[in-house]
Amino acid sequence: MNESRFLHACRREPVDRTPVWFMRQAGRYMPEYRAVRAKHSLLEICFQPDLAAEVTLQPVRALGVDAAILFADILLPLIPMGIQLEFAAGEGPVIHTPIRTAADVAALRPVEPRESLAHVLQAIGLVRRDLGDHTPLIGFAGAPFTLASYLIEGGSSRNFVKTKQMMYGAPQTWHALMGKLARVVADYLVAQVEAGAQAVQLFDSWVGCLSPDDYCEYVLPHSQFVLRAVKATGVPAIHFGTDTAMLILWMKTAGGDVIGLDWRTPLDLAWKALGPETAVQGNLDPVALLVEAPYPELERRVQAVLEQAAGRPGHIFNLGHGILPETPVENVKAVVEMVHKFSMRRAA
Amino acid sequence: MNESRFLHACRREPVDRTPVWFMRQAGRYMPEYRAVRAKHSLLEICFQPDLAAEVTLQPVRALGVDAAILFADILLPLIPMGIQLEFAAGEGPVIHTPIRTAADVAALRPVEPRESLAHVLQAIGLVRRDLGDHTPLIGFAGAPFTLASYLIEGGSSRNFVKTKQMMYGAPQTWHALMGKLARVVADYLVAQVEAGAQAVQLFDSWVGCLSPDDYCEYVLPHSQFVLRAVKATGVPAIHFGTDTAMLILWMKTAGGDVIGLDWRTPLDLAWKALGPETAVQGNLDPVALLVEAPYPELERRVQAVLEQAAGRPGHIFNLGHGILPETPVENVKAVVEMVHKFSMRRAA
Repeated sequence: MNESRFLHACRREPVDRTPVWFMRQAGRYMPEYRAVRAKHSLLEICFQPDLAAEVTLQPVRALGVDAAILFADILLPLIPMGIQLEFAAGEGPVIHTPIRTAADVAALRPVEPRESLAHVLQAIGLVRRDLGDHTPLIGFAGAPFTLASYLIEGGSSRNFVKTKQMMYGAPQTWHALMGKLARVVADYLVAQVEAGAQAVQLFDSWVGCLSPDDYCEYVLPHSQFVLRAVKATGVPAIHFGTDTAMLILWMKTAGGDVIGLDWRTPLDLAWKALGPETAVQGNLDPVALLVEAPYPELERRVQAVLEQAAGRPGHIFNLGHGILPETPVENVKAVVEMVHKFSMRRAA
Repeated sequence: MNESRFLHACRREPVDRTPVWFMRQAGRYMPEYRAVRAKHSLLEICFQPDLAAEVTLQPVRALGVDAAILFADILLPLIPMGIQLEFAAGEGPVIHTPIRTAADVAALRPVEPRESLAHVLQAIGLVRRDLGDHTPLIGFAGAPFTLASYLIEGGSSRNFVKTKQMMYGAPQTWHALMGKLARVVADYLVAQVEAGAQAVQLFDSWVGCLSPDDYCEYVLPHSQFVLRAVKATGVPAIHFGTDTAMLILWMKTAGGDVIGLDWRTPLDLAWKALGPETAVQGNLDPVALLVEAPYPELERRVQAVLEQAAGRPGHIFNLGHGILPETPVENVKAVVEMVHKFSMRRAA
């Protein structure tokens, strides 16, 4: 059953155990990853298919998760659009020439992902060859809003002031930018599916800084464009953001077979609001994994998430956001085992 | 009517116009404030009653707001507890010896605010003498959770990892810390009321990083302790946080006559959930003020907030969080005028 547990849950079909994977499951918390990073920059790993494939496979081997997720950075598609990215140590991505004007937006180049992002697609092929049908591979992309926020702010942001200033003050420029990003993201995700991705996740990580009205007016149509293109491929899509308690019904309208939740939104309430035709993913607080064994508190929290899902088909266990770099690997492995053990008991 | 518009709204009584004030209405966006800051540090202003009073009064004179709020920093009560605070330029507060262990918590000293925070209370007296009964003065304090997060993280935080680690991993230490903070905050707010504050706001600015379950277990009893003490004084209390879409009903349980909302939570939905016995404050996105005149978009957004309040008694207009430093003063003044004009039209 393991080869299809995750995909069955995406389609709300019964499973033998609740499937589990983790956002950022390939990353700095793993010694195997740090060993690769000691020799290669982040972009080198992303752009060399054998390295990207190796790093993608590390957590599948080490943790026994029910899905792999392609190792890549959400900002990669910006590079062929003409953006120079820099990853400053410990500071996250930096874009020295942020997008602020209509002319900046007009200068962004269209992207043919099968050419300029071919290395990423090749990594998908390598991972699929290694995984076979044993464990499914999730492709992913940043959603138009989240990519726009990096482009406009020039990096990470706390208040998204410049992003909202363009949105509120120059809505035509905003929509032109979002339209360009939506086309690139849609093409990129479709190309990932063609290359072998068996599901995709759209990361709208920072969209929770918006009110529902602003989401509907400035974001929804563009995310919908992306998710319609994915839907046409037939593979399931996970639509994820943080701080989205008031947005999830609109995110569902934009699309996605599965809505990803952070820990702020109780999974049972969210699922009730979303209705039976939607699957849900989440939503343990990543900080819950920063404990020492034994794990009574961690077990209690894993149980609580599973109880909120109440054994209903269509729950994929995950954290509410990515694994924190300081997380002990053995704790991540323990959570995989807990999810499988506790959900099997429930099924029995 | 102006002298009581704000206080009437706190008590859900009818008003001639919707009252409006702004979080961080005294601050860097004002030239008058920057002139004082050019000569004095933040802590000097907080600790010299005449300077604190002057800075508190600046926005009342310049903007025509319906309430003054004492100029102070939420971290001031930590100083007599034994904490060394530093305000690094552009980096926010820094605590070089953060609180991490039971021994650290045990070493925190009890505080008699009438002695060690007497300068703040004196500033309240000076402001009241100047304002008379014309404009009410709001006192305030940081809530136990938000203060604890600064103490434990050593400053501002993005993920509140160390705060939650103590909460989840050492709950006894956590509750001991929160209990100490709750006593200090309760005494401090009661002393502010005795000194002349006619309402208070409890700022739990960062509590929205928690799930509702965690809020109820680790925060609610301590905020409740504070708000019960305030209730006994008879002045209205505003209970505010950001990212609180899933927390507002529990914040109401903890206490407060008015629940402050950020822009993520639609005011109409929130008020419906909170019920008729609670007043609401908010909730324009602060970034909406970063535009150039004329103001069609800003007017539309101010109107939208007022329409969600639907003329119901018990709405206090505010932003969803503090005024951003880059906000043009004339735009803040324009919002005050819009709120008064549009809400009068509605009342007519």
